[in-house]
Amino acid sequence: MERTVYLDNNATTQVAPEARDVMTPFFDKLYGNPSSMHAFGGQVARFVARAREEVAQFINSDPDEIIFTSCATESDNTAIRGTAEYFGKDTKIITTAVEHPAVLQPCRRLKAMGHKVVELPVDSVGRLDTDRLRAELKGTRNALVTAMWANNETGTLFPIEEIAGICKEYGAICHTDAVQVAGKIPVDVKKVPVDMLSMSGHKFHAPKGIGILYVRKGARLKPFMLGGHQEGGRRAGTENVPYIVALAKACELARLGMDAENARIAALRDRLEAGILAKCPNVRVNGDRANRLSNTLNVSFEYIEGEAIAYHLSDLGICISTGSACASGSLDPSHVIRAMGVPFIAVHGSVRFSLSRYNTDADIDYVLDNLPGVVKKLRDLSPFGPDSDPTTFK
Amino acid sequence: MERTVYLDNNATTQVAPEARDVMTPFFDKLYGNPSSMHAFGGQVARFVARAREEVAQFINSDPDEIIFTSCATESDNTAIRGTAEYFGKDTKIITTAVEHPAVLQPCRRLKAMGHKVVELPVDSVGRLDTDRLRAELKGTRNALVTAMWANNETGTLFPIEEIAGICKEYGAICHTDAVQVAGKIPVDVKKVPVDMLSMSGHKFHAPKGIGILYVRKGARLKPFMLGGHQEGGRRAGTENVPYIVALAKACELARLGMDAENARIAALRDRLEAGILAKCPNVRVNGDRANRLSNTLNVSFEYIEGEAIAYHLSDLGICISTGSACASGSLDPSHVIRAMGVPFIAVHGSVRFSLSRYNTDADIDYVLDNLPGVVKKLRDLSPFGPDSDPTTFK
Repeated sequence: MERTVYLDNNATTQVAPEARDVMTPFFDKLYGNPSSMHAFGGQVARFVARAREEVAQFINSDPDEIIFTSCATESDNTAIRGTAEYFGKDTKIITTAVEHPAVLQPCRRLKAMGHKVVELPVDSVGRLDTDRLRAELKGTRNALVTAMWANNETGTLFPIEEIAGICKEYGAICHTDAVQVAGKIPVDVKKVPVDMLSMSGHKFHAPKGIGILYVRKGARLKPFMLGGHQEGGRRAGTENVPYIVALAKACELARLGMDAENARIAALRDRLEAGILAKCPNVRVNGDRANRLSNTLNVSFEYIEGEAIAYHLSDLGICISTGSACASGSLDPSHVIRAMGVPFIAVHGSVRFSLSRYNTDADIDYVLDNLPGVVKKLRDLSPFGPDSDPTTFK
Repeated sequence: MERTVYLDNNATTQVAPEARDVMTPFFDKLYGNPSSMHAFGGQVARFVARAREEVAQFINSDPDEIIFTSCATESDNTAIRGTAEYFGKDTKIITTAVEHPAVLQPCRRLKAMGHKVVELPVDSVGRLDTDRLRAELKGTRNALVTAMWANNETGTLFPIEEIAGICKEYGAICHTDAVQVAGKIPVDVKKVPVDMLSMSGHKFHAPKGIGILYVRKGARLKPFMLGGHQEGGRRAGTENVPYIVALAKACELARLGMDAENARIAALRDRLEAGILAKCPNVRVNGDRANRLSNTLNVSFEYIEGEAIAYHLSDLGICISTGSACASGSLDPSHVIRAMGVPFIAVHGSVRFSLSRYNTDADIDYVLDNLPGVVKKLRDLSPFGPDSDPTTFK
């Protein structure tokens, strides 16, 4: 592959060189266990403490409200299952149909275990009806609401401040999977009154294998990972010091660069979107264009398969995806696109472009130079088209 | 600190330079998500597959019996809680009083949830009575036995092959926390018929934040970390590719170097032990000296506090511990030492020396030159001694 144009940043991102470099000494020089009683381990504990402060600053929390986990999947499992285990079987869990599997699967496990679990629907652009949320909360006690801040597939933003406010009103606990907003939207837990919030390092230029769970002081949940006393007894397991330090650096980079960076990324994404719409007929944009992450573009190319587009672009060095990497391996169309009721002729042809700070104007030019030809070629081979009987398309 | 003599390798180890180097490209070059459908991610998946083969070879399993986790704590939680969740409340769980907190805490949580949980005692050198195990298994169905292979504090080895055999005899499921044997004793799951086995990368020169769970084909347990389809649907969360690759390198280094390395380490440890016994009066070795890891030495210095010894040695750049780093922060004497019934005058004075391939003869000389003076000084300050009334010692 001569050239790589990486537009799959909602799946994972390149580790920032600054984050990579900052962790190097912690592998074979500052390798002590932060829980050790010797000074060699104690100096490492101080780096972890400083990293915790940086991460806390990133979301405007207190440092001791930050739990380091191994990934957002663990953060989500901890928040959801830990809360349910604390309150027991009469906890009602309210989530949405478009959540990441790391939220949906724990909720479905709890449902199988006898908890009442509700998955709220979304409209055709992926918006949540907050009146439905209110209706589900009415009269409950010990309710947990878990709703994502931004959708990983479409970039659609939920009104998380409003959702958290409604939860407060009804005395419900509010968790948000904020994985996709990290580094893209300022997160301030003093303003947005969620009780718990999950983030993943590798979605904003820290390595794969480190996550954040913010837990507001006083929030009640049982620890998920049981064992040693680490993370104030809330998450056992020797601290992944190199990645914790790298995560803090990624937070710092995101905090300092967010505004300028996302304006530039939004301009690239908008140019990509406009170019595709201008150059390819029978295309529709999925998601809430008025309320969407600046880096994400989900489009359906009607009458052809998203997989085929992705494979052909891959041959040209262009990396995109058809849905969540965490759901790949399945040939079913994305549960997010289906939940939005995208028409049948378009649902299989949806693909996602997701940008990062490392994308350039040249990347967008390269996609716009190559994508229309790929789409045309696939359509020429497709037995389906605007004139075919839609009922035969499957 | 001018000099560091690191003898706390059962807490954590230095990452091998070879393991550190092998992961570097995976941070900012080969950073694709292995689950992605593009070739850029696909090439990364091949490195993960090759790493899985190397890890499988390390314990003589099949590659698809290996699940990568974030740490041995997660492996232990998955094995224990996943099995209990599969079989339900009538699962009897049999463990031992000297397990790591990552085993004891999940067992105690299950006990609180209504499972029958038994903690088998050990004798004065930490040995298990396998007749007691048989008695507990008699007449059970759906029993899970979880017993460590080697104790982290004393190095005492359990007869895991016999324990696994007894489990087979009674139709019980057998899990072992093999964290401390990795790289020290050859592990062959074809010979030792455990159903599940946990290991942690950072105990044998891979980074902190990567673990192994071996699950024998056909073993039944529910996934613990729920979400995406990774690890064959058995452990959700984006693969920590850099650490997986580093872990495989650590396995390879251990596999190739084990015999020579451990003979050298055993000689260093034996010289340390002999030197301490020769130079310091009122010292006792804790654990089963006939059946012990080659790198571990746990000794009690009577009439003084282990913490005080560790702090004074830390000032000299010597890193040791008084028990598990995962249990530190607590001022109680180690649960392992107490379970062995170590006499009162010795229980508070226990410390652990644990060696690795990076220790040298000079390290041992340095300890033997400095430790006796520290012990003498502390004893001179101590109100207790061979002539004091032991009932007043606390």
